[in-house]
Amino acid sequence: MSGWLVIAGLGPGSETLVTPEVTAALAEATDVVGYIPYVARVAPREGLTLHASDNRVELDRARHALQMAAAGRRVVVVSSGDPGVFAMAAAVFEAVESGPADWRELDIRVLPGITAMLAAAARAGAPLGHDFCAINLSDNLKPWALIEKRLRLAAEADFAMAFYNPRSKARPEGFARALGMLRDVCGDDRPVIFARAVSTPEQAIRVVPLTEATPDMADMRTVVLVGSSLTRIIARNGVPIVYTPRSAPE
Amino acid sequence: MSGWLVIAGLGPGSETLVTPEVTAALAEATDVVGYIPYVARVAPREGLTLHASDNRVELDRARHALQMAAAGRRVVVVSSGDPGVFAMAAAVFEAVESGPADWRELDIRVLPGITAMLAAAARAGAPLGHDFCAINLSDNLKPWALIEKRLRLAAEADFAMAFYNPRSKARPEGFARALGMLRDVCGDDRPVIFARAVSTPEQAIRVVPLTEATPDMADMRTVVLVGSSLTRIIARNGVPIVYTPRSAPE
Repeated sequence: MSGWLVIAGLGPGSETLVTPEVTAALAEATDVVGYIPYVARVAPREGLTLHASDNRVELDRARHALQMAAAGRRVVVVSSGDPGVFAMAAAVFEAVESGPADWRELDIRVLPGITAMLAAAARAGAPLGHDFCAINLSDNLKPWALIEKRLRLAAEADFAMAFYNPRSKARPEGFARALGMLRDVCGDDRPVIFARAVSTPEQAIRVVPLTEATPDMADMRTVVLVGSSLTRIIARNGVPIVYTPRSAPE
Repeated sequence: MSGWLVIAGLGPGSETLVTPEVTAALAEATDVVGYIPYVARVAPREGLTLHASDNRVELDRARHALQMAAAGRRVVVVSSGDPGVFAMAAAVFEAVESGPADWRELDIRVLPGITAMLAAAARAGAPLGHDFCAINLSDNLKPWALIEKRLRLAAEADFAMAFYNPRSKARPEGFARALGMLRDVCGDDRPVIFARAVSTPEQAIRVVPLTEATPDMADMRTVVLVGSSLTRIIARNGVPIVYTPRSAPE
């Protein structure tokens, strides 16, 4: 019996954004491991065991998946979006590095998915159409001072930006500080896009100028995109188009 | 007759990475527009006209697609990867903004795809598992000084980095300068991943320390990923695993 471990991205929500590669891996799996709402997206079937666990137990979940693969099971760890972007892939490799030597020789594959910022950007136009950065605003695993430093340098570099995990009940003040700092450093009224639950029935996209962006416009299902100094808005009936041109002037 | 325009991402190469949403749009299209090698990935069929054009005519291509959609055709503009990342979506919106007013009211949708950096990251492990940035190293449409400034600030922010269009015959010296600057600013031997033609039969992944990275390791089919100061390598038989942990220390 030859086990394997796949770390798969389910995309932002819609089944029409799940790659055929991920669908095929799920069809071959004996075990699916992940955070409760992501495992809930996998259809139960005979021969498949679903292991749903709570949030913030990523390392335990990763070790459990590795143990099962080492025992010969065909295991898929599911993430929403892309598993390599603020999701389960790094957690699995942390567990591999600190685990028994034979885990290194397992058949481990990462299958990419549509990450939230790119699904959100597509719905809004092309706000990430020029150089950009992605920052996890959660300070669970890094100091807030590092987040502030990155925000300041990213604004100075004139990147468009995508923020994951902008706001939680546990730390409501962080995102307000981030918005305040951006207003100070950017000094203009570039567009901010709040994209919630993209590609699901609850999808909501809101575009506001930076000076009007407030923390309550985001929750943990929201990805926030901030334009660069060159980002433009095309007004039209309904939601405007937000895009960043390919060119930057001399 | 009601036309529409879809700007679709075909992913990095493999058909197993094309989303069902994109496959469905192609099945409904009357016209497919794009750069020759991307249009070649669409199967011909009765009722579908393929419009393949050369590189560097993005705005002409975008206007042609918009004209056809305005005339009632169902048009798909194809990009490799994700259309919103250094690809056709921004070009189409530039054409919309400078074009006739009725183009703004067209049914235009962007369908995301698996972008090269995330496909490459998945093959290598999880090098973009913490905050990161994406920079187009081509200076066709922006001054080289801006690229250098962004590289310096991105290194100072300790982002992992993804470089698109690292090298062309027309400007072979740019990438060498970028690597030299990173060696100076980073001052360590973090891993660099050269990922060529990911997910195609020509796929080649190479991991080298920054001090050993040379420009000839990349061509225009290569995406280059550079770790942050925290990026780690897990040695094993065959290609090592490269990943950036989720945590950053105080």
